[in-house]
Amino acid sequence: MKLGFIGVGVMGRGIVRNLMRGGHELILYNRSENAEVKQLLAEGARRADSPRSVAQQADVVFTMVGFPKDVEEVYCGPEGVFAGAAPGLVAVDLTTSSPALAKKLAELGEKQGVSVLDAPVSGGDIGAREARLSVMVGGKEAIFEKLQPLFRLMGQTVVLQGGPGAGQYAKMVNQIVIASNMLGVVEALTYAKAAGLDQMRVFSSIANGAAGSAALSNLGPRMLKGDFAPGFYVKHFIKDMGIALSSAAELGLQLPGLALAHRLYEQLAANGCENDGTQALYKLYLSNQVTL
Amino acid sequence: MKLGFIGVGVMGRGIVRNLMRGGHELILYNRSENAEVKQLLAEGARRADSPRSVAQQADVVFTMVGFPKDVEEVYCGPEGVFAGAAPGLVAVDLTTSSPALAKKLAELGEKQGVSVLDAPVSGGDIGAREARLSVMVGGKEAIFEKLQPLFRLMGQTVVLQGGPGAGQYAKMVNQIVIASNMLGVVEALTYAKAAGLDQMRVFSSIANGAAGSAALSNLGPRMLKGDFAPGFYVKHFIKDMGIALSSAAELGLQLPGLALAHRLYEQLAANGCENDGTQALYKLYLSNQVTL
Repeated sequence: MKLGFIGVGVMGRGIVRNLMRGGHELILYNRSENAEVKQLLAEGARRADSPRSVAQQADVVFTMVGFPKDVEEVYCGPEGVFAGAAPGLVAVDLTTSSPALAKKLAELGEKQGVSVLDAPVSGGDIGAREARLSVMVGGKEAIFEKLQPLFRLMGQTVVLQGGPGAGQYAKMVNQIVIASNMLGVVEALTYAKAAGLDQMRVFSSIANGAAGSAALSNLGPRMLKGDFAPGFYVKHFIKDMGIALSSAAELGLQLPGLALAHRLYEQLAANGCENDGTQALYKLYLSNQVTL
Repeated sequence: MKLGFIGVGVMGRGIVRNLMRGGHELILYNRSENAEVKQLLAEGARRADSPRSVAQQADVVFTMVGFPKDVEEVYCGPEGVFAGAAPGLVAVDLTTSSPALAKKLAELGEKQGVSVLDAPVSGGDIGAREARLSVMVGGKEAIFEKLQPLFRLMGQTVVLQGGPGAGQYAKMVNQIVIASNMLGVVEALTYAKAAGLDQMRVFSSIANGAAGSAALSNLGPRMLKGDFAPGFYVKHFIKDMGIALSSAAELGLQLPGLALAHRLYEQLAANGCENDGTQALYKLYLSNQVTL
């Protein structure tokens, strides 16, 4: 199939490669010319000069951009996907974005015969590269079934969560768990240090028991090594938590753990750490700057 | 060896059995005559009528009781361990209790030639039964080494965390992680329900990825089934979080995630749920009674 891919960063590169390995022809668009695009062009992908042009050429278009406003621009802008889409096109937004926007895009698409699915992923750049993403899909079941073979090229855990927006809701569930898990890891390691313990020794006592988590196992050791390089950016996590909080408010929910994590990460970003990895929250606690 | 065991509940039963399997002679004391003690007497353990009497007869005394005040009574009371201890006795407190009390007991013990270790465990009644506990030890290295063979009968992860109190500090680290992990699981599942998702389907998308945790995998499904039976009691978790918060304050630390979890669990207990399992926090969120 002819597949379009709009927004080719580190995650996108891994996904695009896996789609090409599946025998598909790839047409790329990225706002800037970056290293990832150059590599993929050298590996056989083609390039288009707008999302509109991608939509004109492809059977299925994937999008993976930054913020909900970028998603909206990529779909609804004058050079956007909808401007170039013919009836029958399927578009899949892989961006972690707002459930409300996902519903809106599905409705707008339907008016011109375009099926839009929301399908945010979890698993990071390594998951993308190794085709081990968890893909959380919202949209019509028939379209989901048609796209299953493509999703399977990206990850092993591919689940239709419900109608339009359900993929985004599911991804928010994922991020809500992680938000509080990060607090747990950071507070625990801060306490261990203050108590005069050997933090790695405590880690060895607790990592595989009732306190165990992916956050603790993957990010705890990085915190202790002072490695704050981004796997997942602070700024993107703040975006996700903001979306989760807004949608929770729309649903009439109070989620104080999430709200607390969001506030602390905003403090961290205000300290100039927005381009660090999420494990950098440990720095805020170490600096004893946690104020509430 | 002649081993004493003071405080024989569901956890203690598992540990005592494993110590007996290791070829040791067990002398038990429990405040009340319960089913666990009866079973163990039938299996060959003996019984004493006070902690003092246990200390008089045993080479090593283990204690595992409820709250720090119980620990203090069992060691320092007129019928306590210290009252019956001869120089050379080793006492090991397996209770999750306060680091400050652990240091005090070690000092008091030293005055009469008694070595006191703090060695709280993690792993629950199943871990106790299957000898898969994580044992976090504080005390003198030479005594720790002498007791290694006994600890190895209880669990695979046996780590000396430092001097007196370090075992308790390490256990607090464990509980601090769990406190926020519980918030994450409960808030995420509450959000999933409000968003109209199939919660088990979301669970299948997220349980093995970046949001994964023992709390999510072990307790998430119980929440969704409405199974709030205690694996770990709400009232005991509140005790542990209270100890962690006090000791954090002594260390000059702010741990807002822990403080939040403690407040929410106190709300839950005030609703009459103190004898539920910790997964019952989900009920507080479901009732939309989360107030801050």
